Amino acid sequence: MTPPTQERALRTREALLWAGAEVFDEFGYAGAGISRILERAKVTAGALYFHFKSKEGLALAVMSAQPQVIEPRLHSHGLQRLVDITLVWAWELQVNPLLRAGVRLSVEQGSFGMQDASSYLGWTEIMADCLRTAVEEGELLPGTAPEDIAEFLVGACTGVQLYAQLVSNRADLPRRTVLMWRMLLPGIARPETVARIDLDVSRGNAA
Amino acid sequence: MTPPTQERALRTREALLWAGAEVFDEFGYAGAGISRILERAKVTAGALYFHFKSKEGLALAVMSAQPQVIEPRLHSHGLQRLVDITLVWAWELQVNPLLRAGVRLSVEQGSFGMQDASSYLGWTEIMADCLRTAVEEGELLPGTAPEDIAEFLVGACTGVQLYAQLVSNRADLPRRTVLMWRMLLPGIARPETVARIDLDVSRGNAA
Repeated sequence: MTPPTQERALRTREALLWAGAEVFDEFGYAGAGISRILERAKVTAGALYFHFKSKEGLALAVMSAQPQVIEPRLHSHGLQRLVDITLVWAWELQVNPLLRAGVRLSVEQGSFGMQDASSYLGWTEIMADCLRTAVEEGELLPGTAPEDIAEFLVGACTGVQLYAQLVSNRADLPRRTVLMWRMLLPGIARPETVARIDLDVSRGNAA
Repeated sequence: MTPPTQERALRTREALLWAGAEVFDEFGYAGAGISRILERAKVTAGALYFHFKSKEGLALAVMSAQPQVIEPRLHSHGLQRLVDITLVWAWELQVNPLLRAGVRLSVEQGSFGMQDASSYLGWTEIMADCLRTAVEEGELLPGTAPEDIAEFLVGACTGVQLYAQLVSNRADLPRRTVLMWRMLLPGIARPETVARIDLDVSRGNAA
């Protein structure tokens, strides 16, 4: 039975997104051939141009798709949810092509003449949201600004994974993420919140 | 009068380093033509191959030369010196081609098949040194590990500048650096040290 058109279009789009992610992750932007992406996705060039207009459009979609991997795996809220986002991300970056390619493209985009902040701003908004909940629930120190913390965290996580990639092929990224939170929590959260937040490195792995 | 050979060789090396930095900063690694670099440095291809072996060798040298721009401008020690490194870096990144190219190449190196941690490890060692002094002088909280903090800072600064580059062409990087320290200091330094550290955003600019 043929699925309804809209559903089929969605499946084609997802197939292209994941095939693109695999190829970008493996070969980088410049080395990612359109024909290889189409072959892996088992779709036609027409489908690529219909859904993403161009290789650049597909790259932008891959960069911005990172949260769709992380968010379904979260079961906490407020500051703990923010911690969990970074821990799930740290583990998934080792295996998930959509995340790996998203991060690789976001970081290397200057090398292929792109300068697009959307993926960074998308994460910032998601993280600021957790922090606004944290403020409402009295978890943060007075005077802390959710947007400032969120923007810093997006930058810090991006850089810490770059460092981890170079020194351990990211194997020690979860440990580095926990260390980041140990240093950072006392400057943003109330002492009783700091004591309550669970920084078990395996949280992100079990999720 | 002809300068002694060694001095002349050193000047040729510096000329190549700065010309390479300018061209890498402007065009990225792939777009940086050897002939353009030689033209700007006013040296021969032989000099490039003598000093750096290849374009890749020149890129590695540019990546690792960042501290030579920063260190002569520092006049503090311990934790304040560490803060000053990041503030001078945040200001100089807006104008200094050796820093700009060093950071650009370090971040984008994956796109041209390089995976070299030297520039990150060089900064880590310089920062860990400040932190070891800070430990000796009792500035840090008990139990803090200079190497862990240094590694985190190198990653965090790298990522924060990437974020700043995308949203403000780095104009707000000094402000973001101060915010980073406000969040980070309470988790690593004793309260009396936190109160004493000068986070005036213009410190790095006046240096």
